[in-house]
Amino acid sequence: MLTEDQGLTLSPDEYSLLTDLYQLTMAACYTGEGLAEHPASFELFVRHLPESFGYLIAMGLAQGLHYLENLHFSSEQLEALEKTGIFNHAPPQFWSLLASGRFTGDVWAVPEGTAVFANEPLLRVDAPLWQAQIVETYLLNTINYQTLIATRAARMRDIAGEKAMLLEFGTRRAFSPQGSLWAARAALAGGLDATSNVLAALKLGHKPSGTMAHSLVMAIKALSGSEDEAFTAFSRYFPGAPLLIDTYDTVAAAQGLADKVRTGEAEVRGVRLDSGDLASLSQKVRSLLPDISIFASGDLDEWEIARLQEAGASIDGYGLGTRLVTGKPVNGVYKLVEIDGIPTMKQSSQKATYPGRKQVFRSYDQGVIQFDRLGLASESIEEGEIPLLNLVMKQGKPLFNPESLETIRQRTHASVASLPDATRYLHQPIPIQVNISDKLESLRQSLLVNS
Amino acid sequence: MLTEDQGLTLSPDEYSLLTDLYQLTMAACYTGEGLAEHPASFELFVRHLPESFGYLIAMGLAQGLHYLENLHFSSEQLEALEKTGIFNHAPPQFWSLLASGRFTGDVWAVPEGTAVFANEPLLRVDAPLWQAQIVETYLLNTINYQTLIATRAARMRDIAGEKAMLLEFGTRRAFSPQGSLWAARAALAGGLDATSNVLAALKLGHKPSGTMAHSLVMAIKALSGSEDEAFTAFSRYFPGAPLLIDTYDTVAAAQGLADKVRTGEAEVRGVRLDSGDLASLSQKVRSLLPDISIFASGDLDEWEIARLQEAGASIDGYGLGTRLVTGKPVNGVYKLVEIDGIPTMKQSSQKATYPGRKQVFRSYDQGVIQFDRLGLASESIEEGEIPLLNLVMKQGKPLFNPESLETIRQRTHASVASLPDATRYLHQPIPIQVNISDKLESLRQSLLVNS
Repeated sequence: MLTEDQGLTLSPDEYSLLTDLYQLTMAACYTGEGLAEHPASFELFVRHLPESFGYLIAMGLAQGLHYLENLHFSSEQLEALEKTGIFNHAPPQFWSLLASGRFTGDVWAVPEGTAVFANEPLLRVDAPLWQAQIVETYLLNTINYQTLIATRAARMRDIAGEKAMLLEFGTRRAFSPQGSLWAARAALAGGLDATSNVLAALKLGHKPSGTMAHSLVMAIKALSGSEDEAFTAFSRYFPGAPLLIDTYDTVAAAQGLADKVRTGEAEVRGVRLDSGDLASLSQKVRSLLPDISIFASGDLDEWEIARLQEAGASIDGYGLGTRLVTGKPVNGVYKLVEIDGIPTMKQSSQKATYPGRKQVFRSYDQGVIQFDRLGLASESIEEGEIPLLNLVMKQGKPLFNPESLETIRQRTHASVASLPDATRYLHQPIPIQVNISDKLESLRQSLLVNS
Repeated sequence: MLTEDQGLTLSPDEYSLLTDLYQLTMAACYTGEGLAEHPASFELFVRHLPESFGYLIAMGLAQGLHYLENLHFSSEQLEALEKTGIFNHAPPQFWSLLASGRFTGDVWAVPEGTAVFANEPLLRVDAPLWQAQIVETYLLNTINYQTLIATRAARMRDIAGEKAMLLEFGTRRAFSPQGSLWAARAALAGGLDATSNVLAALKLGHKPSGTMAHSLVMAIKALSGSEDEAFTAFSRYFPGAPLLIDTYDTVAAAQGLADKVRTGEAEVRGVRLDSGDLASLSQKVRSLLPDISIFASGDLDEWEIARLQEAGASIDGYGLGTRLVTGKPVNGVYKLVEIDGIPTMKQSSQKATYPGRKQVFRSYDQGVIQFDRLGLASESIEEGEIPLLNLVMKQGKPLFNPESLETIRQRTHASVASLPDATRYLHQPIPIQVNISDKLESLRQSLLVNS
């Protein structure tokens, strides 16, 4: 298992070592100092929203809980760790702790599909210190990436409108095979309709989606002499499937198809455009083939969809790949906020955190979020407020069955609908105001004084 | 296997479905048209280098070959595909083709660690059309991502110098757990010294590396009252391991350590700075602790390393995370260049390709690359030229054992050393000139005329 594997795949059994070395060295130190079992709380949040983002859609919790529930170290893994020599001075109890260790803590989290803002915990872990420490890396990995993708997907859906068909095409540019599965999940939960990734679709209980590629047109044209024959051949086995018409000359291809539709020789339900001036080409294709679905692809994102709409494009659906699944990350962090009931905070330059176990209290007016109040978990809910963090795992056991992607997708949709227009802008959006409660601010001030 | 799995892990057995749906629908169409077994050639290349990149370091071939060697479809997978209903009109032979199908083609590739430029094939697949088609998605996935990371790592090494200790810290921000493994592999092969990712290090036969986190300082300070005690505790189990000194006040922490070093109470070999003005803090820490290693981290990349050097920072090593493992992708594409011996090319607006099976002929002068010649594979090697693409897989079997990471890392180092200074610039680099051979240009022109 731990020998070199050219595929560099990983099995769920290996996830316990999918962590930064320092999580394990710190756990060893906690053990030696007699602190390993002290009750600790860590919170996962972003310090700032990514540039040009007015909100984030929380995502990735399901994989996080699955990881926590299954966390354990095999004897093979412990042996491999020991062999590194790094732990030669670690206390012997460290090894028995890992060998018998499971995650036995509680988890509070905002449901997947919920809109969140800077400094608001997406998740809190209340657990023995060593456990809460070592799970940091994996939890950040799943929540950072899936939150990024779900947020991008929600923004694309928001700008494209409910009727547009939005397809996830990013597998070839995703950052590893598993990255493509996670991207597909978060994209579907964030508002896209389907993915071209066959494995992801089947694993997620979806039907995969797609069109055709230039290679089919090129191969059949080379062998039979015409692009037209490629369309006919493909339609023979996939009647009505969208045809890719930009391999040579988009408008000429559309004209050819229109002629065949008129004479009844072909039935065309959709085409895809993958290059050129998509706005003007889509209009020309529309005039030739008025009743079909026109799909566009090629480095598209929410800003490009908006630009195409403004340019009067006649596009019914978008293939979204590279710019959906790659790019600047969501920079979530996971910070100690309490140990043995003592609130803690980091005071590093520009990276200071709020102390204590917190709750987010959200206030609405006629279905629209007015503001959030970031307070201590011990504070009372004020009238009209809804607390966002719920207990989802108790003593290492999930309290609920996993939600369906459809449930999460509906929550995402409702979350976006509850945002003021200015929070949904693609350019210079205005996030919801997050007010710090008096009690939290007093606690912060008292710790500043005491440090 | 194909039921919903909350972990969204994947096993190597599943990789055959890790593809875009259209690869399979096209394979079905080829089968129905009697074209599935026609010999085809596809090449993988980038149309443009990423912005501010003067070169790419090819990476990810090992995972690609491993995938090709093991490619097969299980009866369970075929059943799941059939159940989607998408293939209801596909020819029956399609199912037997997949059931018995293995990859039986040849692969030509540039070795991992080689510098490549726009339009130069990193890899060519010569295989029956259906096989060459369906492997596109996976090959692009592994080569696009690992090439990005290896290139970033090589640039970081180039600017930081050979003596700097460069550590990969990106797991928490990587795009999925497997993404973190691939990032670690490519980063090490691209020139970094070690990774903090325990699982990746062990799988790659490396020793994981790391320091400590703020949470340890915060926890021990909260419980015992001092940051100092945190350092003492950690050093008890990990003597000489670098200490993280920016949790509260970097200079005060360094002063405290210096006092203890002077009195012989502590032995400090290294510290890490993770916030604040790293240039000026590193100088202050150096004046207090002249003989230790100073590590810096926090959203660093090659440009930031250069900036710190210019600002006179006194830093011995860098922790490289977020900006190494995320960001804009390498946009490799995979295009049909020949079918049944007939050269093909795509003529889409701004996405036109060069036809035919190609070779890259590289010319050096005193160890420095002068220019490349992109020609047809059938062209002769001219005096002094070295062809970059080698046959690495014959009829589905690899011709060589996988290379060690150390071998690839040395090749990367030699590749960067062979580039002119201007190609290595971080700002407005000048790529090596890629000359199109007369024969290739003639072929392209002839196909333009004939289309």
